[in-house]
Amino acid sequence: MALDLTESMGPNSLREERSKVEFDVEAMKVVWAGGIEHKNMADKIRAIVTNDPVFEKVSRPQQDRKTLLKNSLKKAAHAWKIIQEKKLTEQEARLLRYYIDEPNYTDLHWGMFIPAIKGQATEEQQKKWLPLAYRMSIIGCYAQTELGHGSNVQGLETEAVFDPSTDEFVMHSPTLTSTKWWPGGLGKASTHAMVYARLITDGKDYGVHAFIAQIRSLEDHEPLPGVTVGDIGVKFGNGGYNTMDNGLLRFDHVRIPRENLLMRLASVTKEGKYIKSGYPKQIGYGAMVSVRSYIVKDASDILSRAVTIATRYSAVRRQFGGGEGNPETQVIDYKSQQSRLFPMLASAYAFRFVGEWMGHLYDDVMARLSVNDFSTLPEVHACTAGLKSLTTSYTSKSIEECRMLCGGHGYLCDSGLPELYAAYVPACTYEGDNVILLFQVARFLMKSLSQVGMGKKPTGEAAYLGNIQGLATKNCGIKQGGEWMNYEAVVEAFQARAARLSGACALKLNKAPDVEAAFEEYSTDLADAAQAHCQLIIVDKFAEKMKSAFPGQGTRQILEVLFFVYSLDLINKHAAEFLSTGYLTSKQLSLAKDQLRSCFRKVRPNAVGLVDAFGHTDHYLGSILGRYDGDVYPNLYKAAWNNALNESTVTEGYEAYIRPVIKNQTQNSHRR
Amino acid sequence: MALDLTESMGPNSLREERSKVEFDVEAMKVVWAGGIEHKNMADKIRAIVTNDPVFEKVSRPQQDRKTLLKNSLKKAAHAWKIIQEKKLTEQEARLLRYYIDEPNYTDLHWGMFIPAIKGQATEEQQKKWLPLAYRMSIIGCYAQTELGHGSNVQGLETEAVFDPSTDEFVMHSPTLTSTKWWPGGLGKASTHAMVYARLITDGKDYGVHAFIAQIRSLEDHEPLPGVTVGDIGVKFGNGGYNTMDNGLLRFDHVRIPRENLLMRLASVTKEGKYIKSGYPKQIGYGAMVSVRSYIVKDASDILSRAVTIATRYSAVRRQFGGGEGNPETQVIDYKSQQSRLFPMLASAYAFRFVGEWMGHLYDDVMARLSVNDFSTLPEVHACTAGLKSLTTSYTSKSIEECRMLCGGHGYLCDSGLPELYAAYVPACTYEGDNVILLFQVARFLMKSLSQVGMGKKPTGEAAYLGNIQGLATKNCGIKQGGEWMNYEAVVEAFQARAARLSGACALKLNKAPDVEAAFEEYSTDLADAAQAHCQLIIVDKFAEKMKSAFPGQGTRQILEVLFFVYSLDLINKHAAEFLSTGYLTSKQLSLAKDQLRSCFRKVRPNAVGLVDAFGHTDHYLGSILGRYDGDVYPNLYKAAWNNALNESTVTEGYEAYIRPVIKNQTQNSHRR
Repeated sequence: MALDLTESMGPNSLREERSKVEFDVEAMKVVWAGGIEHKNMADKIRAIVTNDPVFEKVSRPQQDRKTLLKNSLKKAAHAWKIIQEKKLTEQEARLLRYYIDEPNYTDLHWGMFIPAIKGQATEEQQKKWLPLAYRMSIIGCYAQTELGHGSNVQGLETEAVFDPSTDEFVMHSPTLTSTKWWPGGLGKASTHAMVYARLITDGKDYGVHAFIAQIRSLEDHEPLPGVTVGDIGVKFGNGGYNTMDNGLLRFDHVRIPRENLLMRLASVTKEGKYIKSGYPKQIGYGAMVSVRSYIVKDASDILSRAVTIATRYSAVRRQFGGGEGNPETQVIDYKSQQSRLFPMLASAYAFRFVGEWMGHLYDDVMARLSVNDFSTLPEVHACTAGLKSLTTSYTSKSIEECRMLCGGHGYLCDSGLPELYAAYVPACTYEGDNVILLFQVARFLMKSLSQVGMGKKPTGEAAYLGNIQGLATKNCGIKQGGEWMNYEAVVEAFQARAARLSGACALKLNKAPDVEAAFEEYSTDLADAAQAHCQLIIVDKFAEKMKSAFPGQGTRQILEVLFFVYSLDLINKHAAEFLSTGYLTSKQLSLAKDQLRSCFRKVRPNAVGLVDAFGHTDHYLGSILGRYDGDVYPNLYKAAWNNALNESTVTEGYEAYIRPVIKNQTQNSHRR
Repeated sequence: MALDLTESMGPNSLREERSKVEFDVEAMKVVWAGGIEHKNMADKIRAIVTNDPVFEKVSRPQQDRKTLLKNSLKKAAHAWKIIQEKKLTEQEARLLRYYIDEPNYTDLHWGMFIPAIKGQATEEQQKKWLPLAYRMSIIGCYAQTELGHGSNVQGLETEAVFDPSTDEFVMHSPTLTSTKWWPGGLGKASTHAMVYARLITDGKDYGVHAFIAQIRSLEDHEPLPGVTVGDIGVKFGNGGYNTMDNGLLRFDHVRIPRENLLMRLASVTKEGKYIKSGYPKQIGYGAMVSVRSYIVKDASDILSRAVTIATRYSAVRRQFGGGEGNPETQVIDYKSQQSRLFPMLASAYAFRFVGEWMGHLYDDVMARLSVNDFSTLPEVHACTAGLKSLTTSYTSKSIEECRMLCGGHGYLCDSGLPELYAAYVPACTYEGDNVILLFQVARFLMKSLSQVGMGKKPTGEAAYLGNIQGLATKNCGIKQGGEWMNYEAVVEAFQARAARLSGACALKLNKAPDVEAAFEEYSTDLADAAQAHCQLIIVDKFAEKMKSAFPGQGTRQILEVLFFVYSLDLINKHAAEFLSTGYLTSKQLSLAKDQLRSCFRKVRPNAVGLVDAFGHTDHYLGSILGRYDGDVYPNLYKAAWNNALNESTVTEGYEAYIRPVIKNQTQNSHRR
């Protein structure tokens, strides 16, 4: 049957969209990348990945778990070969792993095992372990969480009991719930583990410390005696995170040398004496800021990826309207589509800029740490915790929202969105559970407010709390809709809301006889206050970014529109907080909504340009709906025929399970 | 290694929870089931499924697509055998398919193909097709959506051109986008399809009509000449909906007899003359109400399933607190957990009761239709559309929320939640896209209000709009928190909010020169108004249910608490609408929140009892975290070892892809 697969509607739609864009897309690519060097590096690495058949990934949803893992090991080995051959820098190597877009053991080896050595090992220990890790002669993972313990690190049960008679620690898993559970790369790949265990010496429990334990033979990869290790099973999604061998680990009185305790913060002598080094443990916070800034940048990247798919397909897809020979209306022209899609588009840029700022924050923290200035750390800790929580939660939800915006076809793995969601959503849990992180922010806010009461000025992004009296009393003065198009007015609104929510919580806690019980009782209000604080930071940093120079024609203008889309949408979504705290009137809220709608009109012609500026390759998107060329339907059709069920016209199981039904023979045929 | 797997903490926790429950759980089971007969029937069918190894389902996430489909065909054949052997009633057979809990072609055969014949075929046609379908001598699917057309049914492109010379219709797929795409059961199983195609006769296009087309041979199951048919590919999730063969279908001038046009509403004569039958098409609406009431009941069931898992595991799981030899705090004791979990628990009951009411509504509609009374149909149409949209959207989101409430372990397929989400979320799209359905509700509301202006009283659940003047002016009079514990006060609040939101939209539309353009411009406001209307219905029906008698001690009391949890939580979540419309003051909102918190305290000791009352079997839950006995950790541990990656201690791919890395030999080893 001669079916013409050169459909032109989709490609024409995107061509037309691109012709309407009002700003310099190439210049915006540089803005998005954070500078021309970053853009060039990304382009270089993306080209490597895109052009290498080993890194093909769209077949993943059809693979069983064993195949998934094996192919992932193959990609890791191939990437390692490329890194060595092309002598990639550390940053380039990270980008390469990122664009390969397949979770595997190397993420943990480079992202957790090595940084933990750097942070917690003495210089002598680093000299021993780092070269081995850097050349991958050992593969390390990060074995912290246990079957019965996640967020509560102090409750971990694994034991490391010092035996002075042999100068060794005896690693042991005393209970079922002490089984290490979840560490990535542990299940099948790692040879070594950074194990968090209770240090016990001379009968005393000194709490959780980090130890390096070899778990598999370097010769044949078999688990060492006394070590039980394996994979914990299938996770959410078809491909998703299932390329990763999240593992379980038990020790049965396994002996490791005393020197394998990482001793930067504390050591144990040959005699079994526990000695604190006096080294300030805050030094480790720098690494935490760095990790969180990467997570926020990744969030913006993943969000931008989902938004790219939804935006392009919304311009290709048509539904209703038209008539009389005219094509139907592009879905992106519907306001209900715009009001869901454009705030996510704006959020991608907002998260990008706050992630960029966190990079500078890291430099500042490192400079201060080098002179033992720990004064800004509580604020930095709260701020980065909150931003990690907010951006990863929002991004996860938005991937699903983007999928929904693609209609039914978004449900096909060929859309790229189901697997993206399944693979990304653990970001809400790892590196700090998002709910618990918000409570940490709330605790910081309450503490800051009580210090304000004692005359101490809050620092950094919490500085506005110093003006809580003013913010609590001065209400919004906006009378005309146009007055909302003002950076100061918007930032002030977010400050007032955040300050008032925090203030109200502080009042409740102050009144309570038992502060801890009250903290628990009002935990949702506290989480709301924390969220308001973090949204303020993002709005504030976006406004600050707008003070800088931008390359290219029209870039500043459209970013300005995105700023107001981002902030006014938040005001609308959290209107109850702006209203109930008395800062806004219903009329002012209504004016903000009108402005938001008018911003959507300005985004509309630029939407495809704004997602093109993310610079994502078709390989990275892994989505037929989001193809750069818009050639969606022919490729969906072709892809369907590559599916295992279409290998034969008559399905496996027909003779055994369909024919007997049709022929009314299930009674006889079904004896088993 | 002697690892003791008889852990007792989890089972003890649940035993203790059950001892604290303050109401009669067995009586509540009857309430939940909607009567003792329903409960007995459910128990009977659940026992059949649970005790039959063919219906084992927990291994699905480890199966590849071919195995998934084949096993699903096997289950369908086995179920058919049971239905015949045990002479199950139609309702029992539906329940059996439901509890097997695996989407497959029989869902479409019984749920769409047969009802479509009943609704659209003449009696003569029914006599021909129904017996074939009832004994499954043919397998039918419902081929409506196309690659390029989903919700816009009138835009379908498949053609059925009448050829009087042979008395046949020529079925043809003229474009790529006209390819039928998504119909369940079409890909590999069906022999026949209910095809929606444009009826063209004598050169004139009469729009979309339903035709029965045979697509596969009844002898060897090969596609018939001119028919291209196959599976569209892998969908979200590992098992998920992948047991279903959603299909694609193309016709290349395939001829079917004229009589295969379903002719209840319109027919074509031998000469090619198109004749409307004069049969009122509204008659078909009865089936729609029935389908939607099933969807709402299923939503309550799926929601209750996710909530069961999250509630039990929240009682088993402990985190932080404790100390000094005491066990850590049960996660369910945290307010932040309760404030997310308990509203979902209350929603499950709320959805159950509104679904039950929809059953009665169906009876009422059928009685009216039998005397050609179509007067209530617009309201019923809007009401059921809105309830379908609201309950399926909420349930989908809540499954993910429940998964998150289980912490990291929720991400394992062993939790049962990832696959539940992936399999359920299409409910937001099929049988009417949830966003489009809300707009239909909004259109109904706007029309009703304009008719109120003309003196016409709205009927049924829209009756309150007749009192819009009163509702728009009388604000909430609550002064003390306790006054919120009042059914009338709560219902009035929901009426006022819904009426005011609708009224505000109507005002905007009235002012606009182009009503359609204004409807588009204010579509998000209209969707909000529609949502408020539907939430009112659920609150109202829950309040009405509370007027009936309840069996058993304490059932009424705890259901009353759930009513207030459901309604006050909604007021809190949508506070902006209650505030901005001026109905509530911030103070009244704050009082409502206080009452909500005190309701949570009343739910707490009854939470496990309330989920036990759903009566879900461990087979149906398919979740280690949600096990009835609470024996979670030993079973998670055991399950991990059943995973394919643990078949060998040294992983496949070690020699090829890990050893070369460790031994620094990737350069040589990696020649391909």
